[in-house]
Amino acid sequence: MINVSILGYGTIGSGVFDILDKNSHIITKRNGEEIHVKSVLDLRDFKGDPVESVLVHDFSEIENDDEVQIVVETMGGLHPAYDFVKACLEKGKSVCTSNKALVAAFGPELLSIAEKKNCNFLFEASVGGGIPIIRPLKTSLAPDEILEISGILNGTTNYILTEMSEKGSDFETVLKDAQDKGYAEKDPSADIEGYDTCRKIAILTSLAYGRQVGFEDIYTEGITKITERDINYAKKLGAKIKIFGSGKKDGDRISAMVAPKLITQEHPLYSVDGVFNAILVKGNMAGDIMFYGQGAGKHATASAVVSDIMEASKHLGINIKTIWEPEKLGLVPFEESISKFFVRLSGTAQDNSAKAGKAFGSLTPVDAGYSDEFAFITEAMTEGTFRKAAEETGNVINKIRIDA
Amino acid sequence: MINVSILGYGTIGSGVFDILDKNSHIITKRNGEEIHVKSVLDLRDFKGDPVESVLVHDFSEIENDDEVQIVVETMGGLHPAYDFVKACLEKGKSVCTSNKALVAAFGPELLSIAEKKNCNFLFEASVGGGIPIIRPLKTSLAPDEILEISGILNGTTNYILTEMSEKGSDFETVLKDAQDKGYAEKDPSADIEGYDTCRKIAILTSLAYGRQVGFEDIYTEGITKITERDINYAKKLGAKIKIFGSGKKDGDRISAMVAPKLITQEHPLYSVDGVFNAILVKGNMAGDIMFYGQGAGKHATASAVVSDIMEASKHLGINIKTIWEPEKLGLVPFEESISKFFVRLSGTAQDNSAKAGKAFGSLTPVDAGYSDEFAFITEAMTEGTFRKAAEETGNVINKIRIDA
Repeated sequence: MINVSILGYGTIGSGVFDILDKNSHIITKRNGEEIHVKSVLDLRDFKGDPVESVLVHDFSEIENDDEVQIVVETMGGLHPAYDFVKACLEKGKSVCTSNKALVAAFGPELLSIAEKKNCNFLFEASVGGGIPIIRPLKTSLAPDEILEISGILNGTTNYILTEMSEKGSDFETVLKDAQDKGYAEKDPSADIEGYDTCRKIAILTSLAYGRQVGFEDIYTEGITKITERDINYAKKLGAKIKIFGSGKKDGDRISAMVAPKLITQEHPLYSVDGVFNAILVKGNMAGDIMFYGQGAGKHATASAVVSDIMEASKHLGINIKTIWEPEKLGLVPFEESISKFFVRLSGTAQDNSAKAGKAFGSLTPVDAGYSDEFAFITEAMTEGTFRKAAEETGNVINKIRIDA
Repeated sequence: MINVSILGYGTIGSGVFDILDKNSHIITKRNGEEIHVKSVLDLRDFKGDPVESVLVHDFSEIENDDEVQIVVETMGGLHPAYDFVKACLEKGKSVCTSNKALVAAFGPELLSIAEKKNCNFLFEASVGGGIPIIRPLKTSLAPDEILEISGILNGTTNYILTEMSEKGSDFETVLKDAQDKGYAEKDPSADIEGYDTCRKIAILTSLAYGRQVGFEDIYTEGITKITERDINYAKKLGAKIKIFGSGKKDGDRISAMVAPKLITQEHPLYSVDGVFNAILVKGNMAGDIMFYGQGAGKHATASAVVSDIMEASKHLGINIKTIWEPEKLGLVPFEESISKFFVRLSGTAQDNSAKAGKAFGSLTPVDAGYSDEFAFITEAMTEGTFRKAAEETGNVINKIRIDA
């Protein structure tokens, strides 16, 4: 029997508890040994809940329980999650977490402690919820040089963009609706400003290239500036607007970015709508591989945590090597990143077309029936060149990137 | 240093050789130890090819080489592949294979030998080419009861159906073109009759439910009866025709089938076109997860083999448990399988509508402008009921299933 403790009985923590109970027959059979939840840490009481009999309020009870071999961290946030996880690993207990903020900030340090203590630090659930991506990246794609890893990594923003497109509603209306349905937080900034996607792509890019990619170094643009008009232009182009996190090879360097992008029907992620997430990996040998599923949700995310528990339980005393060196990977400076741009200028086509051509070079006009603005798609150019051109015209309403 | 031998220097075998050379730097770093190809078995000579210096013609040289820890089987076919693989496992050498026929026929026996000898029998490349599916199914989805596993598992037939749809060409023309392009074999029956898909879904269903599913017990229907008219009806319905292999829970039982199906835009696999493959897994906790990529091709498939070599090299002397019991899983009898059916009857609507309603029950007519036939979609019914109704009318031109 394997003894597990869960830190935090919130949505994901209670989902883990639930799956280990409901699917216990299957899990024991596949795992070879029963997985038993010995204790659950939470400051709250849960009168009448099945968790009540194993609930503890003091972390040291878990830290000092030598029978506990695997600890699940589903508290979220950096502190005390970091401190608790570190203490468990130092004691040789494996830790499985769904906490992307923790992994993005302290991944290399926690992996290195796990290696020293012959235990494991696993975090499949930190990116893509129920979608298997961390483990396939570490194992199935291990033979490949990763040319690109990019994805729709946040269900809230994908839901909002999908609803705006399908219902023709504006951003504020859809956000309010998403909040009412529980798809968006009361304070939605982590999602809509792209911070959540940023943590996730920082983790994926770090794993793809084996070195720390600081989330604070990734240019991050949210979806708050996307309007109905942008959506209508996208439709005119047979395209959709999706917010992507991406890390990719650019010559000998790596570039990373979080931003809304225009994608057309040929893009493998074109049909990924609503709260679904998907991740595209381009390997130099395996080619394009796409993983799709529920990027959030109690049981989907908890299923990924339980898969880590099962992996940890098969590797007690054996560290699974994960290459994520702490030295920062130098990213391509933002100003040198290359995209095409969809651009909208205020004023008529007549006012703008000569001026725009002079500033942006060769361009393809896009007409969605708005006579008070002039929209077009540029050729591929750097962010620096784009910025200068935008300053030159002085009347950019909005821009959305298109992969070059 | 890990010593590897490759049995068979055909498309996949030479791809493995190639990747271990071209990506050696990345592979050594991620694997911790260098992987060295010590010998390659092939009856042919390859004068001037880099393989020449390690080529052997006699299997016993590899079988009796105690330095060889991992053997790659990329010969295809059942014999001598089975005999060679068995001999290697008996010697405690791990085997990584891309041979779906071998795995579907002898999976449980070979896994059991590997378990006894503390080595591994791995076969990621046997299904879905470069798409990671076997390992995610064994690890990432281990906490889940699998409600369904189904997919577009054959690139040749998917290419043919896509071309028929996009170009409006007939089956024979597109098949000829696919043969000219090397997408289809000279003898295309394994693909177009669904036998290849059948082996693959037998493997996936066996792993999903932990017991042997005999490929010979799976109802298998190919794409040779699909005509331009079927494609045009599909378009009229906003649907596509794809050949699926599927295994799913049906109450307490498991049903499995290979057949062309009509799917609409809401289906996660709707956009999987051309030579691409995709596999959908429905977990009772993780929800719908989709894996998409190149289902065939030299380097994509070889990348999957190399990922197995790396896994085997990290588990020398340690068997990775795979639950696949040899006792056959009793499948739901074909006559009891339930689908809706798209049906075409010869003769006018006037001739047929009363008769069809009487035989098939409630139905929804589909008009694609062909006055000499009457097409419709039935409600969900068993294969047995459908068969009787079809016998009653006596004029079914073709039928295509729709998931109920």
